Amino acid sequence: MSTVSLDRSTVERIVREIVLRHGGGPSSAPNLVMSISARHVHLTDEHVEALFGPGAKLTPGKPLYQDGFYAAEETVMVVGPRRRMLPTVRVLGPTRPFSQVELAFTDTISLGIDAPVRPSGKIDGTPGCVLVGPKGVVELTQGVIRAERHVHMNLEHAAYYGVKNGDRMSLRIESSCTTTFEDLLVRADKTSKLEVHIDTDEGNAADLDHAKSVKLIRQK
Amino acid sequence: MSTVSLDRSTVERIVREIVLRHGGGPSSAPNLVMSISARHVHLTDEHVEALFGPGAKLTPGKPLYQDGFYAAEETVMVVGPRRRMLPTVRVLGPTRPFSQVELAFTDTISLGIDAPVRPSGKIDGTPGCVLVGPKGVVELTQGVIRAERHVHMNLEHAAYYGVKNGDRMSLRIESSCTTTFEDLLVRADKTSKLEVHIDTDEGNAADLDHAKSVKLIRQK
Repeated sequence: MSTVSLDRSTVERIVREIVLRHGGGPSSAPNLVMSISARHVHLTDEHVEALFGPGAKLTPGKPLYQDGFYAAEETVMVVGPRRRMLPTVRVLGPTRPFSQVELAFTDTISLGIDAPVRPSGKIDGTPGCVLVGPKGVVELTQGVIRAERHVHMNLEHAAYYGVKNGDRMSLRIESSCTTTFEDLLVRADKTSKLEVHIDTDEGNAADLDHAKSVKLIRQK
Repeated sequence: MSTVSLDRSTVERIVREIVLRHGGGPSSAPNLVMSISARHVHLTDEHVEALFGPGAKLTPGKPLYQDGFYAAEETVMVVGPRRRMLPTVRVLGPTRPFSQVELAFTDTISLGIDAPVRPSGKIDGTPGCVLVGPKGVVELTQGVIRAERHVHMNLEHAAYYGVKNGDRMSLRIESSCTTTFEDLLVRADKTSKLEVHIDTDEGNAADLDHAKSVKLIRQK
């Protein structure tokens, strides 16, 4: 009955992937991978060393769907104001130029942090937190966000859907809790695989685990 | 940094109420109250005594929006299989003919319980759990559900929206995370106030706390 055991099931859900065929689309419709991102942390090289010891590097664990990205073996404790904390938050690799903590609103409410919805990397003016690792502590002055829902795709997928990088799409999930999420940010480039990223609040609200179909829809 | 402190902020959110005017509707549009139900428990008289002692009755605390209902002062621990638990789950009153535990999927995943989406009271065949109170323990053989999203209204509201008891409506929440929830169950009777009930996963997915507008829409 420890806090850690409460948390583990969520940690194990880091970026689960669910593949569902489009309903009623043409047979050329690309396979859409739905990924639910549980709370996680991105770190700089410097912060990896501060938290895990001099010379430490991330240890790649489970590969993520997008090539080159992975869940690291390492986890950190995320501490908010008034010393509320999440004990075991997964680090994703590779390292980045800025450290960033991505939480669902259910998490930010638990921590007492008023985090805004931001696309990854747009962390100016966001709240900070304290990260605790086995070998040290880092105080982030900013970087706590709820990641904006988005869809990765390559340029062929973008042409298929009639969208371009930076556009917005809607995502309808048909389930026992049918839900349409609007304004998914399109992140299109030459090499990305087709993949939607939503967070645990969104996945749970729509009961994505038991979804009958999902559909990406171009917005007017 | 105790488990209880992590949990308290959620407990305090029990059935928060947010009033938002309909956007663009006629001036006669009724005020729509949006309530986010955090995890909670309904108990029988017998289970109140088993958990809180012989002769115990619920102590009414904060009144809920619907007349006659209240958050009780009492809380229980909800224990799932493998001894994962939620330490402080609010009891709502008055007592009922059957005990029932209403959780968000984020909670059921933490507990390791595979709860179905059900309208309140339809608990046949649902999983059980153990409830722990200060004076005793109750093993529920069934009753753990995710409450189906729904809207209470009186017959005048139903006429305004062109729906009847048992129909389904959609709810569009416009925010930084604009979301449309389909298939809200209409629960219309002579006396209910107009009020939508969604759970914490749904409220957080749609960022209801910062919503610009909400709109109830009749489904085809």
